[in-house]
Amino acid sequence: MSEPRTRRFVILAEGAFGEVSSKTARGVIRFASTPTVAVIDSTKAGRSVGDVIGASAGERGHVPIVATLAQALALPEPPTALLLGTAPVGGSLTGTWRATIFDALAAGLDIVNGLHVFFADDPELAAAARTTGATIEDLRRPPSRLDIANGRQHLPGKRVILTVGTDCAVGKMGVAIELAQAARRAGLSATMVPTGQTAMMIEGWGVTIDRVAGDFLQGTAEWLAAEGEHRADWAFIEGQGSLDHVAYSSVTLALIHGTRPHGMVLVHQPGREVHTLFEGVGRYARLRSIDEHIRAHETIAALVEPSKVVAIALNTSLYDEAEAHRIIEQIAAETGLPTDDPYRFGPDPLFAAIRARLDVPPAA
Amino acid sequence: MSEPRTRRFVILAEGAFGEVSSKTARGVIRFASTPTVAVIDSTKAGRSVGDVIGASAGERGHVPIVATLAQALALPEPPTALLLGTAPVGGSLTGTWRATIFDALAAGLDIVNGLHVFFADDPELAAAARTTGATIEDLRRPPSRLDIANGRQHLPGKRVILTVGTDCAVGKMGVAIELAQAARRAGLSATMVPTGQTAMMIEGWGVTIDRVAGDFLQGTAEWLAAEGEHRADWAFIEGQGSLDHVAYSSVTLALIHGTRPHGMVLVHQPGREVHTLFEGVGRYARLRSIDEHIRAHETIAALVEPSKVVAIALNTSLYDEAEAHRIIEQIAAETGLPTDDPYRFGPDPLFAAIRARLDVPPAA
Repeated sequence: MSEPRTRRFVILAEGAFGEVSSKTARGVIRFASTPTVAVIDSTKAGRSVGDVIGASAGERGHVPIVATLAQALALPEPPTALLLGTAPVGGSLTGTWRATIFDALAAGLDIVNGLHVFFADDPELAAAARTTGATIEDLRRPPSRLDIANGRQHLPGKRVILTVGTDCAVGKMGVAIELAQAARRAGLSATMVPTGQTAMMIEGWGVTIDRVAGDFLQGTAEWLAAEGEHRADWAFIEGQGSLDHVAYSSVTLALIHGTRPHGMVLVHQPGREVHTLFEGVGRYARLRSIDEHIRAHETIAALVEPSKVVAIALNTSLYDEAEAHRIIEQIAAETGLPTDDPYRFGPDPLFAAIRARLDVPPAA
Repeated sequence: MSEPRTRRFVILAEGAFGEVSSKTARGVIRFASTPTVAVIDSTKAGRSVGDVIGASAGERGHVPIVATLAQALALPEPPTALLLGTAPVGGSLTGTWRATIFDALAAGLDIVNGLHVFFADDPELAAAARTTGATIEDLRRPPSRLDIANGRQHLPGKRVILTVGTDCAVGKMGVAIELAQAARRAGLSATMVPTGQTAMMIEGWGVTIDRVAGDFLQGTAEWLAAEGEHRADWAFIEGQGSLDHVAYSSVTLALIHGTRPHGMVLVHQPGREVHTLFEGVGRYARLRSIDEHIRAHETIAALVEPSKVVAIALNTSLYDEAEAHRIIEQIAAETGLPTDDPYRFGPDPLFAAIRARLDVPPAA
């Protein structure tokens, strides 16, 4: 993925900004070094990003929400790239967006696409891009490498941490980013390893693992861990899905058995009771308890390489601050594990606790 | 996949016939309704198939092994299709085979390819096929459907059985085929559901699930189970890999969580101690015990939908008949489960035991 220094994003999130399905938009606004200059969502036009998503906009709460691409192009610092900002189930392109993508290409904007549909394979879109020299970046296109896991061992002195979770869209990416930042603040060499399209937009590299073929899932996860170890001493790998998810558990497992982490950080949102976007899936919708998740992750990891859950990262956004602290203390007491909300209260204490547990390399 | 009634296979297994890597050849020779008329392997030319693989050739032990495609074409009943008969790790095409494939296309033979490399995407091979009107069937090409699992429930009165195993290449496909045959012999409506390229060659439909992208693995498994239920009352789904496999466990899990079987049949080869083709993967090579596998399968299934291992199918080919019976009795006693070698001693008793356990539909 090219990432020109002068790039500025406009994020297309029509009708969905602030919803769970726009987690890509939220992540890019908050974490990407490339600035977002506008969000397109006609249902919320005139408001600012911060009005809708609050503190999770980070320093970019002032970014305007506009109704049309034309309004974004009329800004004093217009965007140079259109980023598809929602991640619907299945990643399919909805028909009404197509015109906006053509308009963006006609205006010379690059397209940054994390959907399962590859725009560069669409002859009309490809032709439109050629006309203005715009690039189309299909982040979910799998690497041409066909990596079968070969059981490589970690490099000496490295620490590989995988974020796992009790659900999709629970904060695994953000926790990995925050912990890597905390490690760097502690004077360590640290990197975040993107395994999804949003983190790729933020970090500028990685693989969207959910689009890799079954035979190569674990080999690609292994390659990503190796790449993280080459980049830094502490590699925080973004997890995907959850082990009890009717649709996505195999991708979760591939990251556990492929990266074979020194430790796992379990991410959970207290108060969430059913799997996001799968509320309709009756008997499979209910989230399992933290305890069940800890046992399942450790049992399943040990089938290939033992690994422990070394910390719990909570997203306490459904509760006020006092209640959040109460929940954190309760879960810490119940699990005996370092527990905190790294978004709300900062990731440094949680990273320090993880470091204390993992600073000594496990016996070979 | 088209499967003309008059088709006859020649199987290319140069240098590998009879090896573990030629399990596709072995399965097609034994189980496919399409006859194999010759195997190409210059290192064993002049012998018969039965000379090399013994009883696992079934009724086709007399099929000749020849040194060249030309020799196969000179047979009284020459082949009409060239089938790639080995499944190397990663499925890549080895260079020396390319000339034989061109020769086959030039002679008008169709190509049946289960490798990860898609021949129809190769401009030279595609052009050669057009010249003679031959077809190229790339069985691992994933379906264009993008199926996300939606938690469908089984149809009333149906039984879905998944074969699982302690390793790759241990007999999961053959056990599914044998059990479906036994169910039909018992007067029931039964089908085998192919999830790999060899079974697709044998049954004429299915999906090679290891080539499906991560997000769609469980949705495709769910679709395959639904398709099996539409075809028959008893659907025996071919399992893949093993839950403790450093490279393939995620595909195994996808089949468990996607098909949500009423019961699992665990396939094991007594005497096998390390994972096939992964002998070099040091600490991850060792097979886990049957007991560990039973517990792992039931624990992991229950994360989405409870399912039990209802029988053990052994491949006792490393032992003589008396020792085989002793091992079967020992494992039956240790596990408390119906145990047999359905290849060696016939699948009917094992199917009868499975039927006794599953004939009553589980409570909804």
